[in-house]
Amino acid sequence: MKKPENCIVTIFGASGDLTRRKLLPALFDLYRKNMLPQSFAILGVARSEFTDHSFRQKMADELSGSYPSGRAEREKFAQFLERVHYLRMDFADSGAYQILKARLISLDRETQARGNYIYYLATTPRLYETISIQLGRVALNRESPGWKRIVFEKPFGFDLQSAIELNRSVRQVFSEEQIYRIDHYLGKETVQNILAFRFANGIFEPLWNRNYIHHVEVTAAESIGIGDRGGYYDGAGALRDMVQNHLLQVVATIAMEPPVRFDAKSVRDEKVKILQSLCPIAPEEVPERVVRGQYVESTIGGEKIPGYRSEKRVAPNSRTETFVALKLFIDNWRWGGVPFFVRTGKRLPVRLSEVAIHFKKTPQRLFKENLETIEDNQLIIRIQPNEGILLRFGMKRPGAGFQIKSVDMDFHYRDLGEIDIPDAYARLLLDCIEGDPTLYARYDAVEASWRFVTPILQAWQDNPQIKLYGYPAGSWGPREASRLFEGTGEDWRYPKEPLVPATEPIEL
Amino acid sequence: MKKPENCIVTIFGASGDLTRRKLLPALFDLYRKNMLPQSFAILGVARSEFTDHSFRQKMADELSGSYPSGRAEREKFAQFLERVHYLRMDFADSGAYQILKARLISLDRETQARGNYIYYLATTPRLYETISIQLGRVALNRESPGWKRIVFEKPFGFDLQSAIELNRSVRQVFSEEQIYRIDHYLGKETVQNILAFRFANGIFEPLWNRNYIHHVEVTAAESIGIGDRGGYYDGAGALRDMVQNHLLQVVATIAMEPPVRFDAKSVRDEKVKILQSLCPIAPEEVPERVVRGQYVESTIGGEKIPGYRSEKRVAPNSRTETFVALKLFIDNWRWGGVPFFVRTGKRLPVRLSEVAIHFKKTPQRLFKENLETIEDNQLIIRIQPNEGILLRFGMKRPGAGFQIKSVDMDFHYRDLGEIDIPDAYARLLLDCIEGDPTLYARYDAVEASWRFVTPILQAWQDNPQIKLYGYPAGSWGPREASRLFEGTGEDWRYPKEPLVPATEPIEL
Repeated sequence: MKKPENCIVTIFGASGDLTRRKLLPALFDLYRKNMLPQSFAILGVARSEFTDHSFRQKMADELSGSYPSGRAEREKFAQFLERVHYLRMDFADSGAYQILKARLISLDRETQARGNYIYYLATTPRLYETISIQLGRVALNRESPGWKRIVFEKPFGFDLQSAIELNRSVRQVFSEEQIYRIDHYLGKETVQNILAFRFANGIFEPLWNRNYIHHVEVTAAESIGIGDRGGYYDGAGALRDMVQNHLLQVVATIAMEPPVRFDAKSVRDEKVKILQSLCPIAPEEVPERVVRGQYVESTIGGEKIPGYRSEKRVAPNSRTETFVALKLFIDNWRWGGVPFFVRTGKRLPVRLSEVAIHFKKTPQRLFKENLETIEDNQLIIRIQPNEGILLRFGMKRPGAGFQIKSVDMDFHYRDLGEIDIPDAYARLLLDCIEGDPTLYARYDAVEASWRFVTPILQAWQDNPQIKLYGYPAGSWGPREASRLFEGTGEDWRYPKEPLVPATEPIEL
Repeated sequence: MKKPENCIVTIFGASGDLTRRKLLPALFDLYRKNMLPQSFAILGVARSEFTDHSFRQKMADELSGSYPSGRAEREKFAQFLERVHYLRMDFADSGAYQILKARLISLDRETQARGNYIYYLATTPRLYETISIQLGRVALNRESPGWKRIVFEKPFGFDLQSAIELNRSVRQVFSEEQIYRIDHYLGKETVQNILAFRFANGIFEPLWNRNYIHHVEVTAAESIGIGDRGGYYDGAGALRDMVQNHLLQVVATIAMEPPVRFDAKSVRDEKVKILQSLCPIAPEEVPERVVRGQYVESTIGGEKIPGYRSEKRVAPNSRTETFVALKLFIDNWRWGGVPFFVRTGKRLPVRLSEVAIHFKKTPQRLFKENLETIEDNQLIIRIQPNEGILLRFGMKRPGAGFQIKSVDMDFHYRDLGEIDIPDAYARLLLDCIEGDPTLYARYDAVEASWRFVTPILQAWQDNPQIKLYGYPAGSWGPREASRLFEGTGEDWRYPKEPLVPATEPIEL
């Protein structure tokens, strides 16, 4: 296997949560598998006071729990840490970027990175513009020698207008080809596999359209609450946090046309067409087409679970949604008229992301003995956990007559056995090091998503009387979410029993 | 559950193998499950000398091994045997049928069968005509009071001409509605399930045609030799024994159009259309389109396996085929140009019947990294053993890049858990008792099959120089069978390793 070119990865916000939880573990994972460049350096920068040594110590302490295995592994980790460096800097201070540049030049000499730099912005999004511009001021955006790539964590923008503005600023410094907008859902094996599943097989694609598909469900459920993220979350909400990026990208992956080639441009060209084809939900349609909810206190197994408004750094009268469900349509020949039901929420009964494709019933109902018991055919793509594919179809029940029974044919990713499923961040970081942006969000896609989502945000902001339903922590969200299915005779899938039942509508 | 009407089942040839191995066990199975009529009698007739008592004793001795379970089961079996009677008769003797009639009238009084009689012909096929005619002479064909049904074991005819003649004779006595031609493959759960699979699901039928299917394989492999059946088999051969009836019926079930309704007439109307649409194989095409073989001696695991010509009651220079493979086409809009490869043989590596649907490759080959490793999508319908459905499709191999790997999604009938898979004979006998001929072969279908098969038999008979290949017992038949795939880049599936390798062509 050819190794990628030497490079330096600079992580802005290196003392933060993401670096510890995701970025360094992912980089170490790649290192351990011998997939990083022959020579490389990782430079953490942040406002906290560390030396190389004390930063390494902190990482060793914080990560050692994750790599408890034998001596070889510990030595490998120690070797890896030697490549990790630290620089204290104040991101608002122009002078600091000169120091950063000097440090990069010195690391470049050591590692022979030849000007190949990645800037990974794991800071608060408010700093994205500043850091980009400052990097430009000291010419750290300039390519040849080497390449420069800048990675933005989500969210890229806060609504349509701010996304446009942020992009305008960043693009004054970096070209679109240099910009990598992370959407870690796109790095998930199971989301990537949607492309393989659809386009490496001859038997699914002919069914993949309005002639055969009745509706599609996209669910991202989390069982936990918002934890320590109240400060961020209360200003964001579920629609921004999950739908605008992850779930609309999943919709695009499910719905896109086959790309011309399997390269970044062709794949992203097709995805953006879906996002641009989403039928807009006008502000006046929001009450009917979108259901929002917020979890309220409940008791699960004797334990009291606090409501959202009691979480840390959440306004006590907050109207931020922790649950959102909506019905969307794609205005093109393949999907016209097929509803996509999208839902996500915190404090649901289970942590689970899945896509459920519901096929139309048979045009002729041949087995009349059991019309009620014949279910529609379903294809369930489990994104996490328990990654895999499930096909639900009807078989003859053994014995006299022709009773039909729904059965499941199930494929589990873990049955492949051979390789562990790589973490999304490892995949995405490697792609960035190798210069492959296929699984990153291109700006036109980000903008198209915001264009769809912003009128909903706007409607909620302009009309606080649009209902916000309380749902008990541990239930499947507000019952009103089922209203989106009205007239179809269908409902959401509930892959797990609720921990507590839904209540009568509570308006907050 | 409503019980069927009282009736009497007369088994002609009751001292034979089929009665002991299949018919009485199936009837007992139905009895035990409470599915037989409230009151019924079984009358065995044959040339051997038995009384009711000694026949019951013989059946008890021969079947007890199969029902070794507790006391309740033994008592149940004893109760069942009380319904079994015996009458010695010479089938050629007209007078004997008067005695039979008197016995039936007496049993009718005991059982209140009200004239509902089934005649099950488990004799040599040479007697079918005689028995039918003699039953007519004593008016045992006459309905009202009650119904009369006559069941013919396979083969119904020996070639096209004899089938036409046999049917003409039988039809002078019994109407088509009274005639039940057994094809025990049609009674198999997994063959019936093909209909449920195709027509109770919306997702397979759209793919079920020449646009998406590349070719179909139908395999019925047996691992044993011909055992004691040399006397019958040497005059029949694999084409008559397996293809004309079972395998062409399987082809018809796979290929038929959806029936108007799910009743006997509609289903059989569609099946016969397939058999009538088979492109004839002209005698001069036989050497190219049909491969025949005969097993020869081999050594498996140190044990010497005799060749066919050394089997009991087989001519030492026999040219009977114990293996046949052929390529057929169906001349209709759905299937035009799609080859169906059909093969069956004795002394193959495994006992297994399956249908393999091979779908076309994707029209666009998107994942160029691994063009060679992407297999076609396959749907395997396992008729026996290990009954179930397997879908083979491509998934992304976890990790960097987009490597595609073929994986299996597997459904096992036994996972249904609930009910054991009933024996084909039990299903068919119950259907006959209930007057449902859906799973029996209608005459027009039998004739259409013979019409397809007879020119092949004729060509072999007229041109003994058409090659007959020897294949070592335990191999997958003669290598020449792969020749049928020439030009397609495909070959037969080999679901199990051969026990001995195929040899260079041996001509017999």
